[in-house]
Amino acid sequence: MDKIYLITDIPEYSPQIGRLLSMMNYARFTTLQAVNSLSVDQLDFLMDPESNSIGALLLHFAAVEYVYQVYTFEKRELNEEEVSRWGAALNLGEEGRAGIRGNDLEFYLNILNEVRNRTFELFKTVNDDWLEQEEEFWNEKQANHYFMWFHVFEDEINHRGQIRIIKKRLTA
Amino acid sequence: MDKIYLITDIPEYSPQIGRLLSMMNYARFTTLQAVNSLSVDQLDFLMDPESNSIGALLLHFAAVEYVYQVYTFEKRELNEEEVSRWGAALNLGEEGRAGIRGNDLEFYLNILNEVRNRTFELFKTVNDDWLEQEEEFWNEKQANHYFMWFHVFEDEINHRGQIRIIKKRLTA
Repeated sequence: MDKIYLITDIPEYSPQIGRLLSMMNYARFTTLQAVNSLSVDQLDFLMDPESNSIGALLLHFAAVEYVYQVYTFEKRELNEEEVSRWGAALNLGEEGRAGIRGNDLEFYLNILNEVRNRTFELFKTVNDDWLEQEEEFWNEKQANHYFMWFHVFEDEINHRGQIRIIKKRLTA
Repeated sequence: MDKIYLITDIPEYSPQIGRLLSMMNYARFTTLQAVNSLSVDQLDFLMDPESNSIGALLLHFAAVEYVYQVYTFEKRELNEEEVSRWGAALNLGEEGRAGIRGNDLEFYLNILNEVRNRTFELFKTVNDDWLEQEEEFWNEKQANHYFMWFHVFEDEINHRGQIRIIKKRLTA
């Protein structure tokens, strides 16, 4: 925690991976701050009929991270079983509102931690060269692994901004 | 633009600065996509009485970036003249709602570009070692320059998430 404002080396990881993980750790730290002590009702709260709940957004973070673990380390898409576990959290919207509710904060934090711990292990097995590896990705353009994992935390930060908006408007 | 999904080296910059700028460029690219073709009324739209306008958030991005230029390259706080120019955009809320409105998209994009172009020039003058330099920052903890500039783009991504929420609810 004394290193939370340092984007730098992390023991056991290559230099660029240390920096990437530093940014992922800070993003997660601010997410946890934003949702600290929320009740089940607050986690389920919908700002308006189009809104995602904070709970659904938390599960979305874990789901996106899981997808990129599978995509970048196993080079495959989600299988049917995984889609049924993570689909609502990935798609959000109607599906998220219907399928993700009634869970307490610990439920979400346990899943976030479980997925993140796997990320920590997986990143020990690769290095800076792996981060540079490219393949065709969105819009027929090349993306490298660094970009894909940057996207994991930039998606979290994007939705954390939304969590802050929703939290200010909680009436539950 | 063919490199928009690559976090990698950029000519004229040191390796870590190239990666940092790659992330800043992608964040800005998605901001510009989110606000593309918005009218003055849409840029001024307030989702509710507590909301920031999209226009105010755009000016906030430029203001934050300017603050960190001054803070990290000149090692000083904003002077009085700069505070009067950027204060409303930095503070948002009441001050932003009162002071930032009636501007078209070009107004905001010109300021964003002007500030960003200065960032591009400034980063040519430093290197990876500079990014590692630490000083006491928030909560009496050390932060390095990399963190400070990471924060510039993570703040933009946070508010871009909010822009997307506001944009979906535009009635103007």
